[in-house]
Amino acid sequence: MDKKIRAAIVGFGNIGRFTLEALKASEDFEIVGIVRRSVKEDSSIEGISVVSDIRKLNDVDVAILCTPSREIEKYATDILPLGINTVDSFDIHTEIPSMRKRLDRIAKEAGKVSVISAGWDPGTDSIVRVLMQGMAPKGITETNFGPGMSMGHSVAVKSIEGVKDALSVTIPKGQSLHRRMVYVEVMPGYSFSEIEKKVKEDPYFAHDETYVFEVESVDELKDMGHGVNMKRKGVSGKTQNQLLEFNMHINNPALTAQILVGAARAAMRLSPGCYTMIEIPVVDLLPGERDKWIALV
Amino acid sequence: MDKKIRAAIVGFGNIGRFTLEALKASEDFEIVGIVRRSVKEDSSIEGISVVSDIRKLNDVDVAILCTPSREIEKYATDILPLGINTVDSFDIHTEIPSMRKRLDRIAKEAGKVSVISAGWDPGTDSIVRVLMQGMAPKGITETNFGPGMSMGHSVAVKSIEGVKDALSVTIPKGQSLHRRMVYVEVMPGYSFSEIEKKVKEDPYFAHDETYVFEVESVDELKDMGHGVNMKRKGVSGKTQNQLLEFNMHINNPALTAQILVGAARAAMRLSPGCYTMIEIPVVDLLPGERDKWIALV
Repeated sequence: MDKKIRAAIVGFGNIGRFTLEALKASEDFEIVGIVRRSVKEDSSIEGISVVSDIRKLNDVDVAILCTPSREIEKYATDILPLGINTVDSFDIHTEIPSMRKRLDRIAKEAGKVSVISAGWDPGTDSIVRVLMQGMAPKGITETNFGPGMSMGHSVAVKSIEGVKDALSVTIPKGQSLHRRMVYVEVMPGYSFSEIEKKVKEDPYFAHDETYVFEVESVDELKDMGHGVNMKRKGVSGKTQNQLLEFNMHINNPALTAQILVGAARAAMRLSPGCYTMIEIPVVDLLPGERDKWIALV
Repeated sequence: MDKKIRAAIVGFGNIGRFTLEALKASEDFEIVGIVRRSVKEDSSIEGISVVSDIRKLNDVDVAILCTPSREIEKYATDILPLGINTVDSFDIHTEIPSMRKRLDRIAKEAGKVSVISAGWDPGTDSIVRVLMQGMAPKGITETNFGPGMSMGHSVAVKSIEGVKDALSVTIPKGQSLHRRMVYVEVMPGYSFSEIEKKVKEDPYFAHDETYVFEVESVDELKDMGHGVNMKRKGVSGKTQNQLLEFNMHINNPALTAQILVGAARAAMRLSPGCYTMIEIPVVDLLPGERDKWIALV
């Protein structure tokens, strides 16, 4: 039997918890431990070690970074030189190319692999968009998200000082346009209108129609379902009106976690460097030998 | 400016003609010539050389094989040792793994690349199916084709002795089940019922509900539009009911030709060997530098 892939989960919020489930459901992985910066002393969750630093875990092949996006590069930069591959679902689209270049250098120096932005958007949606572009090189692709809670956007709001809890819901307006409905619980002594201003100025929200509401309980509004509708109408060669479409209705953190696990598998098969999902053969996301999947699909 | 990719089109039926259009629309390619076994002496089509053997063309980087599926391996086996990459849209699913192994050996010996089964199914649909499998590892994927003309199936019928012209239309029954409606023009002196029997025994048709009809003019029935609906309902980690869907309504040979051109581009970037589409990073189907696409998607 092949040696199992030894994975550590770094960060244990929503995505971390679903990553634990996805790893448990994946027979080719074993879970070495969970890294939570906040733990005072080593403990365990469901029989799995919880430590404050990945250096306390032995023989980790891959670290699945489940921290907020803004902390991912710091963790990857720290962990790759330890001889550990990293994967993440970094979701700030505009910052992907530059982060990829920086981590590519670090990964190559360490002889290791970093797969970045391996969620569903950016991530699997990116693969579908590139595929659609290849199938009909001229034309327009729409990506319509939601309705659903955006984790990246919600975390961005939660990181604003004075915000106790927050939820950002994405509403599709069509033609890749979205409305952001943001619900916040405000800590005592903070001004809602200042928080509202900071939300609207954040790069996550600056380009969209954004509404911010103060609520008593964010938790009561939470539904982790999400969706996407991607459409391309384009031209193959000289033939117009080629219609391509991709739809999903999914539990958001569960899907992200599952994709991270696939990316962790791919990281074991790639040459040293930093990759986005569109640079990885899709078969490498799946367990076992390539031949099996080539025969099936 | 980068050197253009010098492509030859081998075979000039439906896919060959659409491949010519797709190459003309692709600025990173130049068309070296068209190979038609049937030509008596060298000629030209739209200013492009037409020859009987690819050896008569100079400095070909990649041969796009647009012959019937059953002739593809013969051509690839002949052309790869000449130091020319090959791409094709071989569509007999069950024979892909063994053909890939044989061509992999030949391609590696020649230091060249062969991309096989680079149409839409197998091909881009395969990429989407693998992606869906990775996103929800437990569950069932349906592939529902049509309604539309199947080129592979039509060519298979046309190759039966006594068939003057033929058309096979695929009707989706749901749950990946299909009905095949086959229309044939019979040559004088041949028996329709014997042709009908041969169609139903052919591996292309043996597993489907197949109806064969004799008609006076197949041409009057032809519409090259086609479609697919792929659905997966599955489990990410321990989360049930993840719903994924891909739909297309397309001109069939135009899309196949466009995908072949993308695969020809990828062939220039891969290490020697034989690949199916699920083994190729999708970004390599697109022109220009990876960085451009990473920034866009």
